[in-house]
Amino acid sequence: MSEERVAVCIIGAGPAGLMLGRLLDLAGIECVILERQSREHVAARIRAGVLEHGSVALLERAGVGARIAREGLVHEGIELAWGERRLRIDLRALTGRAVTIYGQTEITRDLNDAHDAAGARVLYECEDVALGELEGPLAQVSCRRHGREETFRCDFVAGCDGYHGVSRRSIPPGVRREYERVYPVGWLGLLADTPPAADELIYASHARGFALCSMRSPGRSRYYLQVGLEARVEDWPDARFWDELRRRLPAEVGDTIASGPSIEKSIAPLRSFVAEPLRHGRLLLAGDAAHIVPPTGAKGLNLAFSDVRELAAALVRALKDGDDRALEDYSATCLARIWKAERFSWWFTAATHRLDDERFGARLQQAELEYLAGSTAAQTSLAENYVGLP
Amino acid sequence: MSEERVAVCIIGAGPAGLMLGRLLDLAGIECVILERQSREHVAARIRAGVLEHGSVALLERAGVGARIAREGLVHEGIELAWGERRLRIDLRALTGRAVTIYGQTEITRDLNDAHDAAGARVLYECEDVALGELEGPLAQVSCRRHGREETFRCDFVAGCDGYHGVSRRSIPPGVRREYERVYPVGWLGLLADTPPAADELIYASHARGFALCSMRSPGRSRYYLQVGLEARVEDWPDARFWDELRRRLPAEVGDTIASGPSIEKSIAPLRSFVAEPLRHGRLLLAGDAAHIVPPTGAKGLNLAFSDVRELAAALVRALKDGDDRALEDYSATCLARIWKAERFSWWFTAATHRLDDERFGARLQQAELEYLAGSTAAQTSLAENYVGLP
Repeated sequence: MSEERVAVCIIGAGPAGLMLGRLLDLAGIECVILERQSREHVAARIRAGVLEHGSVALLERAGVGARIAREGLVHEGIELAWGERRLRIDLRALTGRAVTIYGQTEITRDLNDAHDAAGARVLYECEDVALGELEGPLAQVSCRRHGREETFRCDFVAGCDGYHGVSRRSIPPGVRREYERVYPVGWLGLLADTPPAADELIYASHARGFALCSMRSPGRSRYYLQVGLEARVEDWPDARFWDELRRRLPAEVGDTIASGPSIEKSIAPLRSFVAEPLRHGRLLLAGDAAHIVPPTGAKGLNLAFSDVRELAAALVRALKDGDDRALEDYSATCLARIWKAERFSWWFTAATHRLDDERFGARLQQAELEYLAGSTAAQTSLAENYVGLP
Repeated sequence: MSEERVAVCIIGAGPAGLMLGRLLDLAGIECVILERQSREHVAARIRAGVLEHGSVALLERAGVGARIAREGLVHEGIELAWGERRLRIDLRALTGRAVTIYGQTEITRDLNDAHDAAGARVLYECEDVALGELEGPLAQVSCRRHGREETFRCDFVAGCDGYHGVSRRSIPPGVRREYERVYPVGWLGLLADTPPAADELIYASHARGFALCSMRSPGRSRYYLQVGLEARVEDWPDARFWDELRRRLPAEVGDTIASGPSIEKSIAPLRSFVAEPLRHGRLLLAGDAAHIVPPTGAKGLNLAFSDVRELAAALVRALKDGDDRALEDYSATCLARIWKAERFSWWFTAATHRLDDERFGARLQQAELEYLAGSTAAQTSLAENYVGLP
């Protein structure tokens, strides 16, 4: 058993934890990152791929902006489709901003490379992580690693360990308020080394359910289909996936889809979730540990990076200048942004998915899209949320 | 028993039927208006009070624009309130348009006066109105009036007899498609001869439920409270109404509300409803006969007038020029507008009312209003719908 003193103990080595570690490291604040899984497991997670301007800027600040600048695909618009109708939302013209397509796996790799180069301490395969004394003079984080008990005493704990992590659950139930909405659908994702359906993302609303044509690179496509909660990956051989995808797209898109063997195929349920507050004593939550959005608005990773940007700045002020005010504001500052992103993610999901059998609602959806097609104001509202509110 | 030939038989002498009668009369098309209720009953109905630019223009075209020009209150903005927050939506600055406050009772009176002056035939107290032969060479409308059977043979029947009227139900169920959403709340309205709370309307979202401060004239106020479906007018003595109203408004508004004895008090349930198509053979539906919106967006009367404007033009083309094309397009043209208004009315209702106990939804509502407060695009979207889409 070892006990060690560190300024910040970060729980979780996903993009949020790795990014926070980088920002603290660059500010000269000593930290350690504890991760339950193996490095290989984390590195292989396939998640988000659409980055807001602010997220790209944060990668640069973290010293890992070179590869995304070279390989990231800058998208100046997205497309909405319903029936045979197609509507391009010109993000650049409407907001002056664009988004960048760059997979989460790439971000994890870039951040890991930078941590390796800096000799940062990212400890994988930490079992039974437990947080304690969150309201004391020093917090305590303990875990078991390769059969050995380790304890860290720290000024602050950053909970970046996702929805299923231990951090949020370490806030007493009487303090924690949770808000949740569960959707009766999931996303079945398929990754394939085929050229993408189009240069930009296509969000398709169809009576059979939502579909999304996305990509990771000019040679790698990522497609999604709305499926019922009872769906299992084994029910969806590749051929069925491609057939169903084509049926949900305008004919001129569906007819040109290049199909191919899947590299990965998985189902994720849709969920909206927020836990408040983001701070409890010496524990600060960031990213999926505190909030989940349905993936439709591509807000998950971007929100996590926004949290981390605030959190890094607040920790630096607290630890370097002895000024706690930014930490005290951390929860409220982030929650204002989080709730707006929850609103947008819900709206974009509800506008494009089939969530129930109500016939009135299906017609309202259609009216929403028709209204959008005719209104610059409505398109600007969608676009400013998509590229990220200021 | 009498039988009579007329070009157009209009069912219903509410604002839609009276307006259509005026427009046909001015175009030299012979019509008769049949109304189930007495003239006094119709004249006393207290309903909408917010007119879009296009509705005011239609009153002018119908030759009854003088009094609204003199007495109507032009509003260049509306206010939204939640908690102690207040947000003015500057309709004029955002859209170049304003709305006019002028009660439905006043419109009915102006149209009736014009019909009287023109010697138009508006027949009240028509019992057992029945429509027949809608797909024949001439439609037939029969009724009993003052004990006497009367039958009209006509080229077209205009169903302007509201949600409970006979017209819509005369379309065979196999042809008619109905879409409906029922809300678990109603509006309790109170009319009082007191100065309004403010110069403009205030839409207030509150944890206890929605409230609206409206007016009919500088000396006559109209207030509404969201109530449960079980609420009865007799449970709401004036004192309780005023107390509850004050609690739902920002303190600086609530503190200045001038209370007084109610002139009228009534409860109306909230409903979204659309029947398609608007045409079946020689029958054409307009207004509440085909669609209902919750009153939040003030779209009911404006939508009815939009229908009637289209319908009058289409009937004139058909009857004067023998050109049926506008009549053939009537249903689709109106439905495109109707569904957008249904969408807006639903959205504005959902954003400001408490419709269920879901905690997540209550926070989304708050986020919607906070987002609105910070986004010109979102405010423009609200404003362009409120003043009426082109």
